[in-house]
This record gives sequence, structure tokens and C-alpha cells, in this order.
Amino acid sequence: MTELRFEPIGIIHTPFKTTAEAPIQPRYSGGRAGTVEIYSRFEEGLADLDGFSHVILIYHLHLSEGFALKVKPYMDDRLRGVFATRAPRRPNPLGLSVVRLDKIEKNILYVTNVDMVDGTPLLDIKPYVPEFDKAEKIEIGWLKDKIKKGSEK
Amino acid sequence: MTELRFEPIGIIHTPFKTTAEAPIQPRYSGGRAGTVEIYSRFEEGLADLDGFSHVILIYHLHLSEGFALKVKPYMDDRLRGVFATRAPRRPNPLGLSVVRLDKIEKNILYVTNVDMVDGTPLLDIKPYVPEFDKAEKIEIGWLKDKIKKGSEK
Repeated sequence: MTELRFEPIGIIHTPFKTTAEAPIQPRYSGGRAGTVEIYSRFEEGLADLDGFSHVILIYHLHLSEGFALKVKPYMDDRLRGVFATRAPRRPNPLGLSVVRLDKIEKNILYVTNVDMVDGTPLLDIKPYVPEFDKAEKIEIGWLKDKIKKGSEK
Repeated sequence: MTELRFEPIGIIHTPFKTTAEAPIQPRYSGGRAGTVEIYSRFEEGLADLDGFSHVILIYHLHLSEGFALKVKPYMDDRLRGVFATRAPRRPNPLGLSVVRLDKIEKNILYVTNVDMVDGTPLLDIKPYVPEFDKAEKIEIGWLKDKIKKGSEK
């Protein structure tokens, strides 16, 4: 078994104190604002990021304990393979969200459409680039008939 | 310092034996095919994934050594903050690619548009869902005038 070690580069601050309060995805956050605090020793790495309107945050789903290979997603009432869901109880509890970047002041990113719990450890920031990250001719499997439910949360 | 530990759930097989051979992003791979081998103990987690046309792979940029906060991206000739790039020498060497999912046979995913080096350790698979992952009204900063260069590689 290969074990990989990572270290948080910052912390995500949001209005959501518990997982129950947090929206299931950025799209359903109702435009809620948050901040991403980058630890000062990594601040230099934020140069040139302010020209991007959106960033991808990769973070540790730190409240998730253990994992299951079949989970019942919020949007469904039956068990699904965990890799066919965004559920947090994954073998590697990595979270991924596309958020809008409103401004950067020193080591603080002001972002909109947050869906993480307050205090979430940040692992990486990448610029969102449609040429890289946007797919076409898309099918979304079991989620197809469920996707509206999330918007009602 | 909080240290987080992750364990690969599989391995990505591609035609690219070195980083020099690999395209800089999936979009520039010319539709190259690869396979994602999930270790058998995680295979059950792939249930229901076959209905999705695209998946997000999160992987370990395992050939990256150390990191730099300013890097010269392939698409540019000056130093940029590493978080404003997709360069591999990041504080946490996590890679992210959206690939097309052609079929699943047991624990093997057949995918198209791979851009990773052969043997890349896989950390997570998430279904690509436009409602979650597609942003609108996008600005791409320094990449705006560079994006065509990558397509020529």
C-alpha cells in the first residue's frame, strides 16, 4: 500500500457551521459568500490568479468518517456506487467545488457559491478554464431525473 | 501542521510514458484512449457510474518533485503564481482531469482524452455533472491570449 501525504495550504470559511446547513453543491448555495484563507507561506502562489473569474477548490472533507462503497445520495432514495455520487464518505475524502472568485486581498480569496462546512482544510486551488474543464455531449446517469430535487433544498 | 494521508484507489494507464509525451490538458490529447484500473477492493463503488458520459479524475502527480510558488507554465514565457496555473509542481501535487467515459468492464474504466503519464496513481473518481461543475460568465486571466498555443503541442 502506497500512502500519500498532503498538507493543507489554507482553510475555507463559510456561513455553514454543520454539514446539515451546507448546500449539497455550489450551484445550490444561493450565492452564499465565503473566504478562502491561504496560509501566508503560500501567498506568493496566488499571483496572477485575480484575472480568473472562477477557481476550482480541492479540499479535505474533514468531517467525513470512514467510507462506504455504496451510499444513499441526498438526491436519491436507493444505494449507489460512491464513485457515481458526490457523497463525502469516499475512500479518499476529497471535495471539489467550482466557485466564483470575486477578489483577492493579500492571502484571502473572496468567493461566492460556497458549499463547504466552515473550517474545511484546503488542499489546492486551480484556475477554472472552460477549455480544460467543460465537457460536451453529456449524460448524467441516475442523476438525470433527480437533479431538480437538489435545487429545492 | 496537519498531515493528511491518502491511499491510491487505482492506477491510470495511458500511452504516455514520460511527462514530455503527455499533452498538457485532456482537450489537447487528440482523443487518446486510456484505462483506469480500480483496485478490486473498491470495484463495488463503481456501480451506477456507467450512465455518466464524463468523469472527473483526481490523481497524484507522482513524478512532480518538490514545489515552487512561481512557475513558468508551458503556455507562457514568464513566471506565474502556481495556483493560477495547472503546473504539476504544486504544494499538494494533485491533478484533475475531465475525461470521457466510454465503458466500464468490471474494475476497468475505458476513457478518452487522457493527459496523464502512464502509471499515475488515482485518488478519486467523481461523476461530471454540468449543474455542479460548469461555470458561466468566465474570465481566464493570463491564459486568455495563450490558450491557443496549447492546442498546437
